[in-house]
Parts: sequence; structure tokens; C-alpha cells
Amino acid sequence: MFRIAVVGCGVVGSSWSLVFARAGFEVSVYDASPAAVQSTLTFVRAALEDLAAQGLGGDEDVQTVCARLKPAHSLEAALEGASYVQESAPERVEIKRELYVRLDAIASPETILASSTSGLPASSFTDHLPNRARCLVVHPINPPHLVPLVELVPAPWTDAAVVERAAALMERVGQAPIRLAREINGFVVNRLQSALLGEAFRLVEDGICSAADVDKAISDGLGLRWFFMGPFETIDLNAPNGIAEYCKNLGPMYYGLAREQADPREWSAELVQSIERQRRERTQASGLAARRAWRDRCLAAFVAAKRRVLG
Amino acid sequence: MFRIAVVGCGVVGSSWSLVFARAGFEVSVYDASPAAVQSTLTFVRAALEDLAAQGLGGDEDVQTVCARLKPAHSLEAALEGASYVQESAPERVEIKRELYVRLDAIASPETILASSTSGLPASSFTDHLPNRARCLVVHPINPPHLVPLVELVPAPWTDAAVVERAAALMERVGQAPIRLAREINGFVVNRLQSALLGEAFRLVEDGICSAADVDKAISDGLGLRWFFMGPFETIDLNAPNGIAEYCKNLGPMYYGLAREQADPREWSAELVQSIERQRRERTQASGLAARRAWRDRCLAAFVAAKRRVLG
Repeated sequence: MFRIAVVGCGVVGSSWSLVFARAGFEVSVYDASPAAVQSTLTFVRAALEDLAAQGLGGDEDVQTVCARLKPAHSLEAALEGASYVQESAPERVEIKRELYVRLDAIASPETILASSTSGLPASSFTDHLPNRARCLVVHPINPPHLVPLVELVPAPWTDAAVVERAAALMERVGQAPIRLAREINGFVVNRLQSALLGEAFRLVEDGICSAADVDKAISDGLGLRWFFMGPFETIDLNAPNGIAEYCKNLGPMYYGLAREQADPREWSAELVQSIERQRRERTQASGLAARRAWRDRCLAAFVAAKRRVLG
Repeated sequence: MFRIAVVGCGVVGSSWSLVFARAGFEVSVYDASPAAVQSTLTFVRAALEDLAAQGLGGDEDVQTVCARLKPAHSLEAALEGASYVQESAPERVEIKRELYVRLDAIASPETILASSTSGLPASSFTDHLPNRARCLVVHPINPPHLVPLVELVPAPWTDAAVVERAAALMERVGQAPIRLAREINGFVVNRLQSALLGEAFRLVEDGICSAADVDKAISDGLGLRWFFMGPFETIDLNAPNGIAEYCKNLGPMYYGLAREQADPREWSAELVQSIERQRRERTQASGLAARRAWRDRCLAAFVAAKRRVLG
């Protein structure tokens, strides 16, 4: 059984620690701040207890899973025997560039170095490394212990076998990996989110409907299908003979809409303030943390319901 | 208790009949084709039995609900005593223009005339009516008996009180109405879907990832949150201090992506063929109908799970 090293113990690294430990791996947990390492241990225990309280815990007890987390007091100790490193350091390229020099020097040559970065391409912080072919981005959706999707994004020099090994590991720990052929701004998830958000802000700015009604259009409408089918399968089932027929019938309509939507806008301070006001009517600033806990309980319950129904 | 008339017994009208009957209303069911009326009665019974078999039936037995459906042999008979007409005739403006002349002449003046159209603004088929202020679009997401969202879209001359009465009726029958301030191409739902589809096709056309991986990015990623929160609430919870902070930090990144995405493309025959091939590897053409039945079972199960969790 190989060992995982989690480097960087913020929100993302903490959730990753849970993902790997729950799947049965020994996990070295490291952060430059010992307090951060401690907070990861505390987080994992609390999150496992929350899941158990919801009736969504796994077969093992909390203690067994937590015992797999091994706090490391140095990067060298963390990487000792690790076959895979999940790095979740701050999103600043100069921090990552320095960190990867150390990781590349310490890790044995076949160890995979995977970054959780949501915005920096691996090429921007691994170009200078002797052994850069084992580096890639493995970008989760927050928090990965509740949301399975991860994006695997190679740098131009990433070994294809490294991508496949990372994908196999992700499958094994219960995540759902997708493979990007190459680096692209925003990767796939944030590009899809960007497209939807752009139209959402446009509809509110143009006075077509309220922010709450845009949210409802998704959560009581399109989101019910997107919860278990992507956009392509959705339209494939929306014409008797499938997606080609759908595109033939509705392609011109969508092209017309796409031209109206080819109108990139900055989110003005005024617009953001107006939407912020609308949001604060529903969730006060002081209630955001509680609402986030509610979101995570819902995510856990719905992911469990999905497993039950889809098998 | 007032009576509802469902005019037009295709897929949409049939599902509407179920929605109103399940909520306790007497429903006159009319179509120019008596066979279509019969197929609506058959559909409603089968759909109710499917829901019951899934353990998702309501408190009433199938027979009680079905007994509220009253086949009508003429438009005059259908509208007798009806306070609300849900029209789901074919999506051709000349058909609707003629039909609305008859509906407007037959229906008592305070009866609401609501169209299920997904693409035609009410102004395009009600401008010539003496009593056009009672006309609007009440556009469902298919099928409305499983997906609650409806878009209320007034023509420029629609009485605001008519919109409010239609919204109140929709709430009462368990649907989730949103109100558009005015007519706009694609309404809200198809505009949001258009934005996402545009990027989905672009990612596949540019060779970034497979159609299946785009679908996974939604169904194992973004769609898990959009199932119960819209895009605004999602980002509101993704920064410690809420949406204004999120926009301040990430607005420039999204604006950059929006500019890259301001590139409307027709869906080329070649691209559509390639995606069609990818889809057919997962669901053969001969399996589409069964997959659609699977989708509807999933929708019913997930909507029920959502009610259970959210209360």
C-alpha cells in the first residue's frame, strides 16, 4: 500500500486528507505551520463525525480513519515513502515555484507531484524542474470529500503515464476524474461556471429577473437534470432520435442566443452591490458560516441519495 | 374550487394534466384529436402508477386523481367554467394565432390564457385579441409533473394581476414560478442552458476534453450544488464574506474567461456528428426511450429526496 503526502493544510488540503484516509491510505500531513496541521486533524475528525451523525459514515469507525493521518514535521519527513503528493499551497505562483523546487529535489523520481491549484497552469510553476514530467494539476471542486469531480490538467511536458496513474488513484479513492488534453484558462469547470455566471449576471443587470429567480431557474429547473446527467446527455434525451436531431431543430435558436450572449461584461460595483443586497435578504452576513455548514450537510445527503438511486 | 382547462394533449399537456389533477383540481382535457385526449388519460394513469411503484405517490389513490380528468369533446365544452387555461398546442405561431382567437372569444373575460410555449413570446400570438391582457406564457421544464420550475413571461399588455394570479396558482399546484419582467429570446431557462451548452460544444470542438468528460464536470461537479442552490447562492458561499468578496477576488478572472467565450459558433455538422457518436457509445439509438424512462425515474426519486432533506 503506498503512502500519500498532503502538503498544505488549508480548507482544500484538509478535505483531501479525509479523501485519502477514508480510502484506506496512510497520509502524511504537512504544512509549514504546525497549527495548520493540527487544524487538519481536527477538521477530519469533525467531518467524519458529522457524516456519521447524518448516517452517511463509511464502514469504518472515525478513530480507524483518523489513525491513518500522520502529522509530519518537515517536508522531508512528509515525502518519505510517498508515491503521490497532493499539494494545496497558497495560490501564488512564486510560492509554488519555490515549493516545487524543494518537492522535486526531495521526492523520489517516480513520485507524482499533483497541485490542487484552481487557476495556475502547472507549466507556470514546474518549467524549471529537472523532473518536471511527473507534475500535473489535480484540481478538485471544493470540498473534495463531498464533491467527487477532479480535473487532471497536464503541462506540455507531463508524462501521459503520470496522468493515467493519477486518474487511477482518483478512481480508487472514489473521486471522478476528467482529463484535459492541455492547459486552458479556467480549466473546464470554471469555464462552464463562467459561461453560466456571465448570463446570470446579464439577466439581473438587464432587469429581466431577480437574482433569486435566476437561482430558482437552476435549482428547481435545469439543476435537477444536471445533478445526474451532464448537458450533452440532457439534450440527447430531449429529442426522440437523440442529440443530432436536437441540434438540427434547435441549433439555429441556440446560435441566435449565443450571438446575443457574446457580450462579455465586467461585473460592475453597482450590479454586485445590488445582488449582494438581494443575497443578504436571504442569508445575513452573520449567517453565512451556518449556511455553509447546511450546504455541506445537503451535499453529503444528496451524494448519498445519488449513490443509492444510481447504484 | 375552480376548474382548469388543458388544451393540447401532447407530452407537455399530458404532464400538465397530471400536475393539476394531483393538486385537487378538476381538469377539462381537450385536443382536436380525440385519440390525443385518450393518450393523456392513459399517460396520467401510467405516470401515477410509476410514481406509486417508486414509493413516491401522493396520499390519494390513482383512481381518485384520474377521476378529476374530464375529457372534453369541443373547445367550448373544455372552457366551460374554466378559470385558467393551460394551452400546449404545437409551436407554430399561425396555429397559436388562430387558436387564441377562439380561446379569447369562448373564455369568460377573467379566465387566464396561459401558453406552454418554450420559444414564442405571447406578443406574437395575442396582439390581435380584444381581451389580450389576460394572456401570458407559463413555460414549464419538461416534464412539469417532475420538474417544478415554470417561467411566467408577460406580453407588454399582460395585466400584472394576471401574472400574480398565475404565480399563485403555480405555487398552489406545487410548481416553482419565476417572473420575467418582459419578453426576451429564450426566456431565462434556455438562455442559461444556451450559455452552458455554448461552452460545452466549444470545449469539445477545441479538443480540450471529451463530451463525456464535460458531462461529468457537471453531473459529478457543478451540478451537485446547482441541484439545490443556484449560481448566485453557490458563489455567495464560496468566499468567507459572501458574494461581493467573491466578485472582487474572481471578477477579473471571470471577465477574462468571458472575453474568450464571446465567440459564438454554429454547431457544425462535423462537431455534432462527433458528439452524436460519443453519445451513441453510451446509449444506443434503440436504448434512448428506455434511458428517458430511467431519467424520469431518477428525477422523481431525486425530487423526493430533495423534499425529504430540505423539508
